[in-house]
Amino acid sequence: MQERFNQNIQVGVLGGGQLGRMLIQSAINFNLDIHILDPDPEAPCNEVTNYFSQGSLLDYDTVYQWGQSMDLITIEIENVNVDALKALQQEGKKVYPQPEVIALIQDKRLQKQFYSEHNIPTAAFVLVENKEEVQKHLDFLPAVNKLGREGYDGRGVQKIGSPAEADKAFDKPGLLEKFVDFEKEISVIVARNASGETRTFPVVELVFHPVHNLVEYLFAPADISPVLAKKAEDIAVVVIKKLDMIGLLAVEMFINKEGEVLVNEVAPRTHNSGHQTIEANWTSQFEQHLRAILDLPLGATDAKLPSAMVNLLGEAGYHGEAKYVGMDEVLAIPGVAVHLYGKKLTKPFRKMGHITIIDSSPERLKEKARLVKETLKVIA
Amino acid sequence: MQERFNQNIQVGVLGGGQLGRMLIQSAINFNLDIHILDPDPEAPCNEVTNYFSQGSLLDYDTVYQWGQSMDLITIEIENVNVDALKALQQEGKKVYPQPEVIALIQDKRLQKQFYSEHNIPTAAFVLVENKEEVQKHLDFLPAVNKLGREGYDGRGVQKIGSPAEADKAFDKPGLLEKFVDFEKEISVIVARNASGETRTFPVVELVFHPVHNLVEYLFAPADISPVLAKKAEDIAVVVIKKLDMIGLLAVEMFINKEGEVLVNEVAPRTHNSGHQTIEANWTSQFEQHLRAILDLPLGATDAKLPSAMVNLLGEAGYHGEAKYVGMDEVLAIPGVAVHLYGKKLTKPFRKMGHITIIDSSPERLKEKARLVKETLKVIA
Repeated sequence: MQERFNQNIQVGVLGGGQLGRMLIQSAINFNLDIHILDPDPEAPCNEVTNYFSQGSLLDYDTVYQWGQSMDLITIEIENVNVDALKALQQEGKKVYPQPEVIALIQDKRLQKQFYSEHNIPTAAFVLVENKEEVQKHLDFLPAVNKLGREGYDGRGVQKIGSPAEADKAFDKPGLLEKFVDFEKEISVIVARNASGETRTFPVVELVFHPVHNLVEYLFAPADISPVLAKKAEDIAVVVIKKLDMIGLLAVEMFINKEGEVLVNEVAPRTHNSGHQTIEANWTSQFEQHLRAILDLPLGATDAKLPSAMVNLLGEAGYHGEAKYVGMDEVLAIPGVAVHLYGKKLTKPFRKMGHITIIDSSPERLKEKARLVKETLKVIA
Repeated sequence: MQERFNQNIQVGVLGGGQLGRMLIQSAINFNLDIHILDPDPEAPCNEVTNYFSQGSLLDYDTVYQWGQSMDLITIEIENVNVDALKALQQEGKKVYPQPEVIALIQDKRLQKQFYSEHNIPTAAFVLVENKEEVQKHLDFLPAVNKLGREGYDGRGVQKIGSPAEADKAFDKPGLLEKFVDFEKEISVIVARNASGETRTFPVVELVFHPVHNLVEYLFAPADISPVLAKKAEDIAVVVIKKLDMIGLLAVEMFINKEGEVLVNEVAPRTHNSGHQTIEANWTSQFEQHLRAILDLPLGATDAKLPSAMVNLLGEAGYHGEAKYVGMDEVLAIPGVAVHLYGKKLTKPFRKMGHITIIDSSPERLKEKARLVKETLKVIA
């Protein structure tokens, strides 16, 4: 398989957002030409590849035709036409993650049932078909109502704290998940290649925006006991093995007040909770994804140094051409790495970039993260 | 200057080789579109930018016309038309490094005279116009005969150990430099921005190929005393300040048996002796170059971990389409990062890529570097 490094292999990625963009940066090291399909001609990948095709990710014919010229197909977003991927796979293309895994994860109802069937710890849940059915489960509250399909980046998730709030429920097939009064939210990214090798990145700790349900800060390694960290890593390995999945899987988990680790949800791709690996780990999540889908030996995931990651979100109240305020101040902080995503237009809470911070001292790290968050703004 | 992050600034790079390619990888983080000029349509940058122009770097009109649409121009190779850059500079374009600095460094005779004039320690030398003149300086041997112009990647340098070897001398204007019986060869990369801030990377130790005068291995940090390291870093800062240069300067130095640090030669750009900074330092040399020429605060240069770098050279005896042997074995070594340069054709000693290795133990680092060198081959 030396040809992998011979520019003969055509790798296609469904989705042209920031995850694809960072994958391209990494793929250059392996002489890989990355082909991108995305509906938006202004997608972050378009500026950084010569192989950008504009087209719907959900249209069977578009995905199927585009896939014809690829040897290996992967994704940077789950919301894609799985039937087209199945057809391509049957014709001998490699598709990682496998279409069946994408289909399962696209539907949070199937995902939850999968955890139950495989004894993977997760919060209790009931399936609901619509808003009316939620009324039958008022004794299950407080709960989180999740849409079965099409939730993304904090959308499609609604807390229902009490019967009085039941009319907030979605009127579409979804589920009610017992509200977890969690101590911490963590994430483990695990990779698996076709040879069956698996490897986890160290556990990271996520701090979400209180309203918009987007990762606001992340600290790595998580401030938890080695026993809990081991438990979380083991769960991530079990999930990827039970899924029989090849590629990269981000497993978001809760640690509840009782010290249990519960799977919240998973993403079968590179993930926001792994961006800091570019600077802070022996192998980045992007290279690890490439190694996994190319069936190369997986890279060591040790941390070089403790790190923090701050998402750079469009400032509330601003729509239009992005302007970056405070960049000079932030770049003057030692150990700061700025990643902008090439998005011309900002809007409130749009992910415009991220900042990774490294420091040998976890205390200084937190201080620097706070400073970055306060200083750097995207306005219009 | 927030517009720097607003995709409004057009950055042009003269040269489209591996240094340009790695600069592009880094520039993506800053939303910069990098325009490349290179005579070779198969240059390593062509695959990784949408803004590649084919054309001579030495032709006045080509460089001048191409430069018209740029705001900021830089180089990844010194052998460019300096007059065109001077004209562009006079018309208000920013050109870093400045054309005068490039002109000085293009000519090793001027470069050596510059060191003498500014009391920068360097080996004794005499200028020679041709082969015949070398005969007049037989008492100066053993010496190294260097071509004044157009030496690159080990070419244009010839050791003349004794009068019997004097006929090996170049028959063009050059210089004879007293042969330094060095203890170590080291390099310091120093950056300077328009605001006058300077910062050095830690000293690295170079191990050259005994015949081909190309860097074979590099270890960082160098195994030298803190006093010598400080001396070398101070010299690098003096050189960039005396040149009044903006950008990145690689200063290659000898440490002789007497413990003196002597400047060998400099390159006013990113450099082979800084590749390991991508994985091993808080800021990479590529980002540091961008920070310097954009007049941003310079990044911290601390090492995250000790590192080694091995150049991946085309194996002797093979010409043709490159094939990579031993890649799986090498990728299985923890802490190995492979960078391929996208060159389709290999030839003996062509720089096809490099491998960076990180490890907390300098001993394991040396062992891994040896293993990488023995295992990974580029054949045809």
